[in-house]
Amino acid sequence: MQLSRYFPVLDWGRTYNRQALSNDMIAAVIVTIMLIPQSLAYALLAGLPAEAGIYASIAPIILYAIFGTSRALAVGPVAVVSLLTASAIGQVAEQGTAGYAIAALTLAFLSGGFLMLMGVFRLGFLANFLSHPVIAGFITASGILIATSQLKHILGVSAHGHTLPEMLGSIFAHLSDINWITLIIGVSATAFLFWVRKNLKPTLRSMGLSPLLADILTKAGPVAAVVTTTVAVWLFGLDGRGVKIVGEVPQSLPPLTLPGFSPDLISALLVPAILISVIGFVESVSVAQTLAAKKRQRIDPDQELIGLGAANIGAAFTGGYPVTGGFARSVVNFDAGAETPAAGAYTAIGLAFAAVALTPLVYYLPNATLAATIIVAVLSLVDLSILKKTWGYSRADFIAVAATIVLTLGLGVEVGVATGVALSVLLHLYKTSRPHVAEVGLVPGTQHFRNINRHKVETDPTLMSLRVDESLYFVNARFLEDMVQNRVTDNTSIKNVVLIFSAVNEVDYSALESLEAINTRLKEMNVGLHISEIKGPVMDRLKRSHFIDDLNGRVFLSQYDAWTALSGDQVALAGE
Amino acid sequence: MQLSRYFPVLDWGRTYNRQALSNDMIAAVIVTIMLIPQSLAYALLAGLPAEAGIYASIAPIILYAIFGTSRALAVGPVAVVSLLTASAIGQVAEQGTAGYAIAALTLAFLSGGFLMLMGVFRLGFLANFLSHPVIAGFITASGILIATSQLKHILGVSAHGHTLPEMLGSIFAHLSDINWITLIIGVSATAFLFWVRKNLKPTLRSMGLSPLLADILTKAGPVAAVVTTTVAVWLFGLDGRGVKIVGEVPQSLPPLTLPGFSPDLISALLVPAILISVIGFVESVSVAQTLAAKKRQRIDPDQELIGLGAANIGAAFTGGYPVTGGFARSVVNFDAGAETPAAGAYTAIGLAFAAVALTPLVYYLPNATLAATIIVAVLSLVDLSILKKTWGYSRADFIAVAATIVLTLGLGVEVGVATGVALSVLLHLYKTSRPHVAEVGLVPGTQHFRNINRHKVETDPTLMSLRVDESLYFVNARFLEDMVQNRVTDNTSIKNVVLIFSAVNEVDYSALESLEAINTRLKEMNVGLHISEIKGPVMDRLKRSHFIDDLNGRVFLSQYDAWTALSGDQVALAGE
Repeated sequence: MQLSRYFPVLDWGRTYNRQALSNDMIAAVIVTIMLIPQSLAYALLAGLPAEAGIYASIAPIILYAIFGTSRALAVGPVAVVSLLTASAIGQVAEQGTAGYAIAALTLAFLSGGFLMLMGVFRLGFLANFLSHPVIAGFITASGILIATSQLKHILGVSAHGHTLPEMLGSIFAHLSDINWITLIIGVSATAFLFWVRKNLKPTLRSMGLSPLLADILTKAGPVAAVVTTTVAVWLFGLDGRGVKIVGEVPQSLPPLTLPGFSPDLISALLVPAILISVIGFVESVSVAQTLAAKKRQRIDPDQELIGLGAANIGAAFTGGYPVTGGFARSVVNFDAGAETPAAGAYTAIGLAFAAVALTPLVYYLPNATLAATIIVAVLSLVDLSILKKTWGYSRADFIAVAATIVLTLGLGVEVGVATGVALSVLLHLYKTSRPHVAEVGLVPGTQHFRNINRHKVETDPTLMSLRVDESLYFVNARFLEDMVQNRVTDNTSIKNVVLIFSAVNEVDYSALESLEAINTRLKEMNVGLHISEIKGPVMDRLKRSHFIDDLNGRVFLSQYDAWTALSGDQVALAGE
Repeated sequence: MQLSRYFPVLDWGRTYNRQALSNDMIAAVIVTIMLIPQSLAYALLAGLPAEAGIYASIAPIILYAIFGTSRALAVGPVAVVSLLTASAIGQVAEQGTAGYAIAALTLAFLSGGFLMLMGVFRLGFLANFLSHPVIAGFITASGILIATSQLKHILGVSAHGHTLPEMLGSIFAHLSDINWITLIIGVSATAFLFWVRKNLKPTLRSMGLSPLLADILTKAGPVAAVVTTTVAVWLFGLDGRGVKIVGEVPQSLPPLTLPGFSPDLISALLVPAILISVIGFVESVSVAQTLAAKKRQRIDPDQELIGLGAANIGAAFTGGYPVTGGFARSVVNFDAGAETPAAGAYTAIGLAFAAVALTPLVYYLPNATLAATIIVAVLSLVDLSILKKTWGYSRADFIAVAATIVLTLGLGVEVGVATGVALSVLLHLYKTSRPHVAEVGLVPGTQHFRNINRHKVETDPTLMSLRVDESLYFVNARFLEDMVQNRVTDNTSIKNVVLIFSAVNEVDYSALESLEAINTRLKEMNVGLHISEIKGPVMDRLKRSHFIDDLNGRVFLSQYDAWTALSGDQVALAGE
């Protein structure tokens, strides 16, 4: 029982049958075809040799199949994590050096270790500090950054930088070096891939192809672009005319590698590793949840941490770099009918075959084509509508999105995310700092109480009933103190105050002291303080203090009881 | 109207009469007697010449009388702010130099400016980020630090340091330099003052003195210690035998001074100035609120910021250092019958007279006596019972207090407060990250719903009603998503889910997306999602999105409506 919690493979493996095998095999073939160009492209984005992308898809997929709880999640290099990798290791080593590759392994190792620790201590909830708007803003900004970073490959110039202004400035400075043949290849490939994504499937369907076949052919679009441009370069010797190509890719299974363990390297990469882990985990879990729901299956977020952690540690020892569950590949895997994580294992076998047998075929593949596949893939991540949606729904969320986007583009991914998280927390606290407090009166003929400003209700001038619409804690404790004191000071006919606690889910020690202060002050003013509709857990806690004993008035189970006991016969009709 | 908001003096000044005048004068005399030794002592604590303490009590009191809203608050140097001042300016200048005094003026100026800005923009609520436990822990730790810092004056050795280990280590290293005459004076003065504080008032009362007179004589205890030890030093020439004395104090009204405006100085003092402002403001407002409540008066916290800001700016230009509303002096002022801020102005006149006429009298006053008055005053601030109280009430609050105390003592005041604030926020977010969610059923024969685990209630196996006891926002949005999905996946007989929103005070954009995800997933599982008892403001906000339109089920005003509409006839009795 305990064992199968940590090794979900023991669960689904026991009931594995021929039907599942054949479904998983079909899914694996489709995903493998899609992954070959994608893996090469993301390695390029991370600044690593092309084979690193393939290696990062083999061991990690198998390890996730053993430890992961999602039936459909496909683990491997993804765009955003590749960008984060390039940004992190670009700060400790020069691209193309041995140190750069070792830093990538170390980053994967640290990220895997961190995910494992989070999983073992069941700290998955910490990822929730990344609010949806911050994630959406970050993904959108990352998409823009990634697409921009690929422009240099399309233009055939050398450029660098990790922020939008740096990248654009660098590209602009090198504009005179444009290689026109590269540009033609890059632009045609991009245009072709956009056309495939948008129009190929309907066209094939209208030609009478089955939906599945139409889908597979559409997903194979990048393969067509790769083959065509590779053949063109080889035929016309374009590499001799300045077109950058992938070149020699070692023909081998993933090598056994060791991450670096120097304290300097580890301390430099620790914060980026945490960031990569958290962002990768959040993306991965939301994909896994969505796919699991479609089949009324469960995933266990804390075990997911262990699965992703194992995958990253696997990447660190087999020549890869940080990986996570990718959205596009997982959806393809799911749609293609994958039933179990075994589909991932078969994909790994397919990719291992590609690594051994097919790498010579990509020698003449132009970098511009890979850049085109990246651009087309990531532009689908760019969704500026989140700005409009949050603006309409809540200004606080809008501010968090806008700040995340602007700072990620302008100052880099780490500053962007950190500011987004800090802003979300501060804005949330700010919203709860001045809680909504409604003065309520009795709806005539019922036992219900409603806001006296919104409804025609009965009130009693000697009784003030306040419904507090917020948990009480240090940020708003003093607000309540001031508010009650001011209202009672301003209206000397008040003899009793009832605080309605139906929406108070917590009273922390600061709020307890504020309630005690209110109680003492009202006592000195000869005004009774009463509480109604207090929840079980809140009451349990208040009973640990002297507050209830010292209370100047009474505790009522329902507000109607309070009204019955405290209202005199001087009932006035308010709201008219 | 607007004018008197910013100048409360226009309010109370208009009705000022002979009765108020005589009450205010009596209070002023009592407070002046108490303030003379206290001002000298706190200046010593701040590392400044004795006269700075007197100057800091003159202009600030008058400015507060014009701008402040509390009738009884007495503004001037206080122990904790003096400690913070010593800690802050000790990092930019050597004690005893001209730079040190200028840094003190600059600190007062920055603190005043910051308070003024907060007041003008009505940002007083920001002070609420300091929770009561953090403040209590900080005040207690400060009391211990201050008392320890005065040991060197009692022992007659030179020592330094801003943390407890530093201070104790430094005193220990200088133990061989003890001046025994100083030690005798210091210990006798301390013992005498403790006796006065504890026993003098009851003794005097039992001798038949009136309560007021007994009180005045008790408050004058430090004056007696000052006079006795000063005379002893003068008579026996003890200053020639190594007893450190106050020495020459210029005989003058407060001088006109200018704070330093160099960017280096300002950037070094800005953070401490903010800390001093916030802590001073919090202390001051809570004293003012407490005193105002006793007479059913109001204070305006935002105007208090302006009053305290003006007082500090006044201190900066008249040879003082940062000031705030003191607890002890305000209570004395209130008990002595002060009716209006004019009492403060008369106190200022008394202190100005002291500055001109009485300073030669304190030439032979030993520093050990001043240290004794400080020790006796601050030990009343030390209240370790907060540890026990918070431990009993809430572990999260206990952790915040304990961390604040330990870190303030061990690493200094700034680290202590910063960690305390950060911890309070994180612990609060943690508590809301896994909200209490109760599955409820109908209490037979009523329209009320209660937790099925706590009460004997009717349930329907096809209907799951969940009462969510927390506002929904990014930190707990995914928790709700996972919980609903897991429960529905585990129990396939469920056909309808009702979320009861009576305690949901907010739904932010992240939670909206989670609700949408829940809705989509339940729809795919053929399970209805319904919401009941949603609050007006939350509904208003949800209506800005498509959620309500897309909802898979219905919105019910009350949970009873939902039960009536959704429960079949398969009613089972749970909880038996």
